[in-house]
Amino acid sequence: MQCQIISIGNELLIGDTVNTNASWLGQVLTETGVEVTHVHTIGDDLAKMKRVLQAALSETDLVITTGGLGPTHDDITKKAVAELFECELIIDESVLQFIKKIFKKRNIPFSESNYYQAEVPDCCEVLFNTQGTAPGMWFDRGDTKLAVLPGVPFEMKHLMNDKVIPRIRKINGTTEFRSSHYITTAGIGESTLSDKVIGDLSHLLDENVSVAYLPSPQGTRIRISAYGTSEAQIQERIQPVADYIKEKAGYLSLGEGKDLVLAKALGNLLNEKGLWISVAESCTGGYVANTITDIPGSSNYMKGGVVSYANEVKVNQLGVDTGDLEKHGAVSKPVALQMAKGVAQRLDTDIGISTTGVAGPGGGTQEKPVGMVWIGFWSTDQHFALQAHFTNDRLINKERTAAVALETVRRSILNIDEMPYGLKKYPA
Amino acid sequence: MQCQIISIGNELLIGDTVNTNASWLGQVLTETGVEVTHVHTIGDDLAKMKRVLQAALSETDLVITTGGLGPTHDDITKKAVAELFECELIIDESVLQFIKKIFKKRNIPFSESNYYQAEVPDCCEVLFNTQGTAPGMWFDRGDTKLAVLPGVPFEMKHLMNDKVIPRIRKINGTTEFRSSHYITTAGIGESTLSDKVIGDLSHLLDENVSVAYLPSPQGTRIRISAYGTSEAQIQERIQPVADYIKEKAGYLSLGEGKDLVLAKALGNLLNEKGLWISVAESCTGGYVANTITDIPGSSNYMKGGVVSYANEVKVNQLGVDTGDLEKHGAVSKPVALQMAKGVAQRLDTDIGISTTGVAGPGGGTQEKPVGMVWIGFWSTDQHFALQAHFTNDRLINKERTAAVALETVRRSILNIDEMPYGLKKYPA
Repeated sequence: MQCQIISIGNELLIGDTVNTNASWLGQVLTETGVEVTHVHTIGDDLAKMKRVLQAALSETDLVITTGGLGPTHDDITKKAVAELFECELIIDESVLQFIKKIFKKRNIPFSESNYYQAEVPDCCEVLFNTQGTAPGMWFDRGDTKLAVLPGVPFEMKHLMNDKVIPRIRKINGTTEFRSSHYITTAGIGESTLSDKVIGDLSHLLDENVSVAYLPSPQGTRIRISAYGTSEAQIQERIQPVADYIKEKAGYLSLGEGKDLVLAKALGNLLNEKGLWISVAESCTGGYVANTITDIPGSSNYMKGGVVSYANEVKVNQLGVDTGDLEKHGAVSKPVALQMAKGVAQRLDTDIGISTTGVAGPGGGTQEKPVGMVWIGFWSTDQHFALQAHFTNDRLINKERTAAVALETVRRSILNIDEMPYGLKKYPA
Repeated sequence: MQCQIISIGNELLIGDTVNTNASWLGQVLTETGVEVTHVHTIGDDLAKMKRVLQAALSETDLVITTGGLGPTHDDITKKAVAELFECELIIDESVLQFIKKIFKKRNIPFSESNYYQAEVPDCCEVLFNTQGTAPGMWFDRGDTKLAVLPGVPFEMKHLMNDKVIPRIRKINGTTEFRSSHYITTAGIGESTLSDKVIGDLSHLLDENVSVAYLPSPQGTRIRISAYGTSEAQIQERIQPVADYIKEKAGYLSLGEGKDLVLAKALGNLLNEKGLWISVAESCTGGYVANTITDIPGSSNYMKGGVVSYANEVKVNQLGVDTGDLEKHGAVSKPVALQMAKGVAQRLDTDIGISTTGVAGPGGGTQEKPVGMVWIGFWSTDQHFALQAHFTNDRLINKERTAAVALETVRRSILNIDEMPYGLKKYPA
């Protein structure tokens, strides 16, 4: 089955809104076994809408439109469809009652323009929208089907998941669909991972199974995708590739699952080992603590931390030695080591991790350029620091520093001597 | 001048990549006075590419393609254009030399497939790409122009800014273009701001000047856009609207400029008044400190903070009373008040701000549901707390809490009694 998507709205054409609806639809349609061949983005222009819609309907099995269903005169989708199919616009009573109920609940007066929200062409099947005031519509034109959906992302997704996908599956029968499996890694660059660690996979791949490397600030995810007519068949095609990759990746693999991120994998490990962590941050300014506490349940292993932006806070709250601060500067190995030990001892945790560096864009010197960072680690049996050199971008430096810090903790707990990105360990 | 954009790549259709190139192009073309009428996203399919390109060229003044210029067999853009225009593909010597130099510098062997990167149709003007190995191309077909650009965003933007926009301006002459002006607000919802505070603007707007409200986690930005044939004319059209809005918005306005965010406006104010701030965070877990330290130069007014996720950290590092913790719980007015005062006194700052709440998704009770947050404020002359109720989403709760906390500080420094979103002040 092939599909064209028509996204409607001037805000998309002038770039005020990024067309994330189209990429979400592309993903779920591909996973449902539907091939998307063309995405059109057009404005609120009735003649153009009719022209593009007519061409799409004549070229393909399925057309999905999003947007242009609001209550204002800009919103032309229903009019275009009704004119093209020579149908009448009629009021759908159940939709009208539902809209009135929403307005009453929100305590907003019901105006005439809202009345038109309940209008639908009389040649469609209404896709009842429980998440908003614009109903979706399904048109069965023999070999071609048309789904008309609202542009608000969560309303569109609700109708797609609950109403459109089941209809597609019914039409498609046992047609092939695609499913994916994810393995997350940390502390290694995408190209080193693919070229040196995993290596050539061509003997395991064919037209049904493919692999992609997806880099992100917290690490590189490996996606294995397969086509099949059942979940079991897809699983059978994915399994040998996943096993091979996990074997090759070894400790670099954090585990499996689409939503697994480094902070979550580290949290699981701390939980499992019954360990508490605390954080002392200078250049990351709260980013590391924030990343750890983004994970629900992190209060089971994260006691807290100190953001020691000013040197006096390093001294008073973390016990950093003033002599070392004067002699070596805040961005130095001894300060990173003392911050990590200080926070762990004062907050009474098993592990302390610290960051101090030149985040930029200003403040760099020849000896300590922007992007230079020291990361300290302390536990009852290990105490060391790492030095890294990142970029000229302040926010990227915060992200990368946090990723190295968290992965350093994970490897240390697992007694892995190799540090992230091959960084050298400087013992205390 | 009207334009159609053709974005090429299977990764766009299957939703692996969001088409941000198209929205960026939409913005800059609109600002250059070009109307984008249709964005096509299609796959790496030669026949389809030729068909869509031919139709677009016959319908419009300008066509811009992005993507499909890489060295692999998937990359079909040059072939499609050459076949359509009946041109030969030839090697461009200067491009070839440049590519060879890049490979030598990066120490990568030069393979045959890279040689084809230097191929261009002999009927184009080469747009030399100093940022990568795929050259851009410009085709002058009389009334219709075609720009062929690479899909890598920063290469595409470089060629667009340096080569394509100047050519468009030359063709357009003194045609109108669009420019925008931004006013940032905080502590007020989009609809209250537009309906109650700013009110009807129709007497100030016409086909040349428009206003849009752009909500974001840190506050709502108001964009005033105008068309004109010169910057001076546009400025003249924007000024009365900007003046009117600033007058109406009063203290709700943080200032002007596209990149102005709440944390930056607050930073400017702290700098100007010579005040130091510190932060005590429970439910936000580092988010507030991280937001403050995202601003370059924040070390001039931010001393640091304490992330007190565990109750013992609230007691030991911030001096919160254990009796109050037992009696009222961690999410309570007395604890928020003591955290704010504690961090300000221990870190020796003029202002202390605190957060304690139920971030979710778990941990809620009937009395203290998920999304309930207390925010504490302490300075030498004010000490109070605010209570807010946000959502069921952990990350949104962190964002909203931080936005209220920062805006509370800004208003307190300016002696504005009205709190963000009309929240009630609970004095100590």
